Amino acid sequence: MEIDARGGRVRYRDLASGSEGWESFDTLLVATGALPVCPRVPGSDLDGIHGVCGLQAAVDLRARLDERNVRHAVVVGGGYIGLEMAEALLSRGIRVTLVDRGPEIMTTLDPEMAALLARELEARGAEVRRNEGVEGFEGRDGRVTAVVTAAGAIPCDVVVLGTGVRPNTALAGAAGIPLGVHGAISVDERMRTGVENIFAAGDCADSFHLITKQRVHIALGTVANRHGRVAGITIAGGDAVFPGVVGTAVTKICDLEVARTGLHEREATAAGFDPISTVIASTTHAPYYPGAMPISVKLVAERNGGRLLGGQIVGGTGSAKRIDVLATALYGGFTLPDLVNLDLSYAPPFSNVWDPVQVAARELLKKSTS
Amino acid sequence: MEIDARGGRVRYRDLASGSEGWESFDTLLVATGALPVCPRVPGSDLDGIHGVCGLQAAVDLRARLDERNVRHAVVVGGGYIGLEMAEALLSRGIRVTLVDRGPEIMTTLDPEMAALLARELEARGAEVRRNEGVEGFEGRDGRVTAVVTAAGAIPCDVVVLGTGVRPNTALAGAAGIPLGVHGAISVDERMRTGVENIFAAGDCADSFHLITKQRVHIALGTVANRHGRVAGITIAGGDAVFPGVVGTAVTKICDLEVARTGLHEREATAAGFDPISTVIASTTHAPYYPGAMPISVKLVAERNGGRLLGGQIVGGTGSAKRIDVLATALYGGFTLPDLVNLDLSYAPPFSNVWDPVQVAARELLKKSTS
Repeated sequence: MEIDARGGRVRYRDLASGSEGWESFDTLLVATGALPVCPRVPGSDLDGIHGVCGLQAAVDLRARLDERNVRHAVVVGGGYIGLEMAEALLSRGIRVTLVDRGPEIMTTLDPEMAALLARELEARGAEVRRNEGVEGFEGRDGRVTAVVTAAGAIPCDVVVLGTGVRPNTALAGAAGIPLGVHGAISVDERMRTGVENIFAAGDCADSFHLITKQRVHIALGTVANRHGRVAGITIAGGDAVFPGVVGTAVTKICDLEVARTGLHEREATAAGFDPISTVIASTTHAPYYPGAMPISVKLVAERNGGRLLGGQIVGGTGSAKRIDVLATALYGGFTLPDLVNLDLSYAPPFSNVWDPVQVAARELLKKSTS
Repeated sequence: MEIDARGGRVRYRDLASGSEGWESFDTLLVATGALPVCPRVPGSDLDGIHGVCGLQAAVDLRARLDERNVRHAVVVGGGYIGLEMAEALLSRGIRVTLVDRGPEIMTTLDPEMAALLARELEARGAEVRRNEGVEGFEGRDGRVTAVVTAAGAIPCDVVVLGTGVRPNTALAGAAGIPLGVHGAISVDERMRTGVENIFAAGDCADSFHLITKQRVHIALGTVANRHGRVAGITIAGGDAVFPGVVGTAVTKICDLEVARTGLHEREATAAGFDPISTVIASTTHAPYYPGAMPISVKLVAERNGGRLLGGQIVGGTGSAKRIDVLATALYGGFTLPDLVNLDLSYAPPFSNVWDPVQVAARELLKKSTS
C-alpha cells in the first residue's frame, strides 16, 4: 500500500488475485486503526504468548485455552484489556498472575480507585504484581514457560498481552500526512488532515480534549464511531463537526463496574489546573430496596470556582453508567453547584434521593472557593 | 396550628400534653408537605378503600391484604403510585383492575410510551380500564364491594387510591402567605415566600421549570430535598440557590423501567414550542452480550435549532437511569448535535457504541432545521 497524496491516488494490492495497481481518488479517508504494542524483549516470539487484537487473536487464544492443560496464565499490563482478560481467565478456572510495570494498575484512574479493582481481582484469586516490567520470556520446545521480570521468573502455561495500542500510521506518515500526538494523524473538527482532500477517522486519528484543550489519542470505539460519522457527512458534502472528547471509558471487572471521565487528579495537575477532589461511598440505590451495592465516586474539580474536571466511579451493578452524567456535565462546563442542582432521577430501585454523583458534588463543594 | 406572620409567632399544640401556646420566630420554614387527593364520591368512606400516603397507610393496607380473603383489587389512578401499587398487588397473586379516568394511563408520558406500560401490566394479568372516572363505591356491612364507573360496577375486595396529591397549604394560606400554582406556596430561588422571614420547602412549595420558565408544583423527594438544602443554607446565612427543575421522574413497573424528563410532546406544544419528536427502539447493551433488553427512547426537541425539550424512556434493566443524561442536557440547554457528540460511556455489558439516547438524537436531528 502506498498513498500518493500529491497525485491523488493509492497503490493497492488485490488480496484475492495478488495483482497490484493504482486507484485515483477525489477524496481519501484513512481509517487504518491501531496496532497492538508488544514488549520487545527476548523470547517474545515464543508460542503461547497471545495478544488480543482482532477476532483471530481471540480465536487463537481460546483454542489454546481449550487444550485444557493451561493451569496458570500471566497477563501483562493492568489496563482495560489486561483486566478484562484476567476476569475471563479466572472465570475459566485458570490461575492468573497480573503483571504491571507501574506502581498501580489501571492508570486511567487515580491510585485509590484503582486499588479497589486490584482488591477485587485478588479476592477472586488473582495475584497482582506491581512495579514489574517484563524483561523477557522463557520457553521450552518453542513454547513459553515463564515471564521474566526484575523480581524473577513467573512460571506459566500461557501469556496474554494487554500492553496497549498505537496508531497505525506508517502509511499516512510515509505519504506526508502530518502526524501529531503519539504518532496519530492530526485532524480538525471535520476530520480533515493536513493534506487537502485527505481525511482520517478512528484509532489512527487524534481528537481534541475539551478539558485540557490539547490533542489526544484515545483508541475507543465510541470516539472512532463519532470520527467516522463526521468524516462521512463531511465527505458527502454535509455539515457536521466533532468538537472533541472528555475521555470517558467504562468496563466491568468481575463484579465491579468501573468508569472514568475527564481528568483524574494527576492529569488535572499536569494540565495546569489547581484541583480539589473527594471520594465518597454510597450505595447504588436505596439501601432498603433489595440488591443495593456499594459505590465509590471520586470527583475532581477546580479549586477556584468549582468547575468539574473529572470523575471516577467503582461499584456494583448500576454504578458505571452514572459516569455519563459527569461526561455530559463536562461537555457543558458545569460547576459543582450545577451538579448539585441537576434534576436527576430517583426511585428506590435506581438511586438514593441524592444520586451518588451528587453526594460527591455536595462534599467537594465544601472544599471549593468561589 | 396558626401562623401569625405579622407578629412573628406560631400557635402550636403539644401533641403529648395537649397544651397549646405561642412560639415566636425570627425565621419560619413552612414544610407542611402534600395531602392525598381522594375522590369525593358516594361511599368513599367505606372500609377497604386505602390511600397510600404515609407509613401507617401502608401498614393498614398490608394488614388488610394479609387477611388472605382479598382476591380482587381495584386500583384507582394510573400514575406512579397507582402503577406501583398494581405491581405490588399482582406480585401477591391478587387480581388487579386499574381504572383511569383519562384515555391513557401515566399522563407524564406521551400516549405511545404509556401504552408500553399498559401492555406490561396486561401481560401480567392486570385489566387496564381507560376513560372511566370513579362515580362511587358500593359496600356491604360498611365494607367496599365494588367500584362504580360510567361503565358499571367493578366488584372487588379492596380499593387502592393513587389519585395524586395536592400541596398542604391551608395553614400558610390562612396566614396570608401567597400561594400560586395548584395552591402551592410561591417561593423564589432561595425558597423565600412572599412574606419576609418565612421560607417554604418541599411538597408544599412550588418550583421554577427551567424549560417552560413557569412555576410548577412537583411533589417528588428529589425536589423536596433540594428545596430543603437551599432553605437550610439560606436560613443559616449561607449562599445557595435552587435554579429549578426539569421534571425528571422514574419508576419500575414489573420488569419495565420507566423514566421521563423535560416536556413530553403535548406539554411542549402547550408551552408554545414547535416540537419535533422521534421514538427509537434499541437494546440496553450490546445485543451479543448476555442480558440485553429492549429499550424505547422518545426525544422531543425544538424544530428550529434542535434544542432538546424532553425525553422518555421505557425498557428493561439498565434503561431508566439513562434519563439522567437527558436531564443534565436539559439543564445545559443542549441541542441535538450536542447530544450526538457527548462522550458517553460504552462497553458491551453497559451500552451499544451509540448509547440509545444518542441513537434517538441522531434520528431526530434529521427532522430539525437549523
